[in-house]
Amino acid sequence: MTDSQLLDLSMIDAARRIAAGEVSSVDLVTACLGRIAEKDGEIQAFQYLDPAHALAQARAADARQRSGRAAGRLNGVPIAVKDIFDTQDMPTEHGCRAFAGRQPEHDAACVAALRAEGAVIIGKTVTTELATLEPPRTKNPHNLGHTPGGSSSGSAAAVAAGMAPLALGSQTIGSVIRPAAFCGGVGYKPSFGLIPRVGVLEQAASLDTVGVLARSVDDAAFAVEIMQGRDSRDAATAGVVHSPLLSIAQQEWPLPPTFAFVKTHAWSAADAATHEAFGELVEELGPGQVQEISVDHTTEAGVEAARIVNRVELAAIYGPILDKTPELLSKTVTGMIEDGRRISGAQYIDALNARARFQSAIDEILVGHGAILTPAALGVAPKGHGSTGNPVFCAFWTYLGLPAVTLPLLEVDGMPMGVQIVGALHDDGRLLRTANALVRQMSAGAA
Amino acid sequence: MTDSQLLDLSMIDAARRIAAGEVSSVDLVTACLGRIAEKDGEIQAFQYLDPAHALAQARAADARQRSGRAAGRLNGVPIAVKDIFDTQDMPTEHGCRAFAGRQPEHDAACVAALRAEGAVIIGKTVTTELATLEPPRTKNPHNLGHTPGGSSSGSAAAVAAGMAPLALGSQTIGSVIRPAAFCGGVGYKPSFGLIPRVGVLEQAASLDTVGVLARSVDDAAFAVEIMQGRDSRDAATAGVVHSPLLSIAQQEWPLPPTFAFVKTHAWSAADAATHEAFGELVEELGPGQVQEISVDHTTEAGVEAARIVNRVELAAIYGPILDKTPELLSKTVTGMIEDGRRISGAQYIDALNARARFQSAIDEILVGHGAILTPAALGVAPKGHGSTGNPVFCAFWTYLGLPAVTLPLLEVDGMPMGVQIVGALHDDGRLLRTANALVRQMSAGAA
Repeated sequence: MTDSQLLDLSMIDAARRIAAGEVSSVDLVTACLGRIAEKDGEIQAFQYLDPAHALAQARAADARQRSGRAAGRLNGVPIAVKDIFDTQDMPTEHGCRAFAGRQPEHDAACVAALRAEGAVIIGKTVTTELATLEPPRTKNPHNLGHTPGGSSSGSAAAVAAGMAPLALGSQTIGSVIRPAAFCGGVGYKPSFGLIPRVGVLEQAASLDTVGVLARSVDDAAFAVEIMQGRDSRDAATAGVVHSPLLSIAQQEWPLPPTFAFVKTHAWSAADAATHEAFGELVEELGPGQVQEISVDHTTEAGVEAARIVNRVELAAIYGPILDKTPELLSKTVTGMIEDGRRISGAQYIDALNARARFQSAIDEILVGHGAILTPAALGVAPKGHGSTGNPVFCAFWTYLGLPAVTLPLLEVDGMPMGVQIVGALHDDGRLLRTANALVRQMSAGAA
Repeated sequence: MTDSQLLDLSMIDAARRIAAGEVSSVDLVTACLGRIAEKDGEIQAFQYLDPAHALAQARAADARQRSGRAAGRLNGVPIAVKDIFDTQDMPTEHGCRAFAGRQPEHDAACVAALRAEGAVIIGKTVTTELATLEPPRTKNPHNLGHTPGGSSSGSAAAVAAGMAPLALGSQTIGSVIRPAAFCGGVGYKPSFGLIPRVGVLEQAASLDTVGVLARSVDDAAFAVEIMQGRDSRDAATAGVVHSPLLSIAQQEWPLPPTFAFVKTHAWSAADAATHEAFGELVEELGPGQVQEISVDHTTEAGVEAARIVNRVELAAIYGPILDKTPELLSKTVTGMIEDGRRISGAQYIDALNARARFQSAIDEILVGHGAILTPAALGVAPKGHGSTGNPVFCAFWTYLGLPAVTLPLLEVDGMPMGVQIVGALHDDGRLLRTANALVRQMSAGAA
């Protein structure tokens, strides 16, 4: 296979071909490293890259394959990892000068799960400072003059640029869905608590969720299936039920799934191109498949509650860094901490407790529909690098812990626009199956 | 039996004699009602009392006994209930004008558990306003010029005055141990999460604990054994293991249990009589059985953290009452809410997270000793009714969720003084067994 063919392989296809001996991990990783060498000077997706170490992992994977012994389900497949996930063999600096040169002793639990299946951790991708709103140096592969979004900026850009078939990200408000949408990829933020966060930078324990940036729904489903699990060190994982996400995602729907089109209060702030593109999408699906449902007031209050929870928890965990080494934090992060410190504990508790009320409103919608359909962002990736874009279309769903997927189904002036679908809590499999059905339906319509 | 003999029965003895047909519930409840009629004009332990309804419950219990069918383990035994526990057949007013005349539809889960065993809920006892520090109208049965303590004021006074063998209370900071000690009773605050709080007034969800005021360790153990349980409506009960507390409490120790005498930072504020009484107690037990251990700094920081958690959670839950009907709250409660609203969310999270650190310091002490030995209060019940006394000797243990028992082993100028012992989290049985051993040892020494 040519390098270009290798780089076009999905994660699952690559794993299958490596297992079958049709492709070597060394060839695939070499192709990825070539793409990185070619493109990353301008894109700046990677924070840490050691090509020799990546190739050593690939050689070990190929040796496992050749040995005939059971190799993992991701044996030899390169995966890029946001630089807030601890890696025992690479620095993990959280995009923050206060952690410069930090070398963890252990892999994050989810990284360890990928390695246990034979994955090659190809390198660490750029995160915004402490996974916040401070803009990173990464550029959007579709147009270098635009932001890739954040905070999983490097992961989204790397996958979009063909540097790895899949990358790990995390979402506290909108950090997986937004950059995936801006970079034209599939982004999947699972239900809160599905993947343990042990060894992952904490920003807001009530919201932080591990997710993936991928090129297909199946790849995203499979990676999350491998990383899901319970861990006594992460209370959020207690009681969460696990399921074979990939096989559920690949099931056919007996009928095309129906959608609740929820514009939310943010719709009026979305740009004209978004209004037009979603108008056409809803028209194409037709009234039998899409019903518009209004929950404006709920989402506005929910986004504010999410902001309160995020700011307070962020202030508690990052505050000591500000107190100790203020010169190592950006104005953005300093302002977020100071902002959080001004919020009272009683407001914080109210914001946490309000979730149950919002949840029941959304549950009613999800009973009658396959998923909620909504924009991923206010428009395509904004021009310039002074902002990572607005996460307003993600905050509410993250706050409720709901699984969300963005699909690169729309395009405006050559830039990708994501379609976000949101499912019921802990019913990730159904959401992924719905995502696949929607992708198939739109491809058929386009053909 | 005479009324006086009936009133001297322990809860467990009363249950046994009623089951055996030696005593009728009607006779026992009548004796209790007689004592209430005689004494409660001055003591003011009861908030709500309907003698006819209490007797109707007693007649039903006697009928169950006579029927020969299985009756509950507390069949016909009168129990008094603090007026923050919902009762389907009596008002529940939380000691607060904002809840005047409130009639719940359902029993609190723990009240229902007692009724399921045949208990007679004899009446509702006075609580301080919303279970806070606002003084109640109840007087100390040992000397009407002194406070009974709070917030389980009426329950402690009722048991001490022989109006019921056992009463329900609750502790958020020191509301079971302090009034029990002031009124000369046994107070038992179980491990956090042992008894579901469904249908109980919430003041601070991270601290609120259902407890009992009794006249013996066995009675306290048995009542809590009956009320313990898991309930999906109270997350604190998840994962807590239950055990047959009474039979563990009645086991003999192979050797006399050893104690860590922990004065805490509050010792210097305790009065001279407390210093003297505990000095004598420690001397009597001797160096082989008691070792003084200093944890001053830890307890001071822990009490402050407990205050923060309590005030913030109180402000979140009671704040809306203040906003809606400020005229119905006392200055004390208004001040507590305003105080809580000034505390930031980040401080609150820090105060919650600090627990793990304090816990490990205490765990080390408890590994080497049967229990921690410490005062229950700064002295005997303070004179006057302007304050319910200082809970400083309870706050730290409540904050850590540890089980605590106060025993009426000391006396100063005719007023009872409690000895508090504190055990390891979720090892309530061992603490109760230690409590019984200490009571036996002190009785033998006094004989």
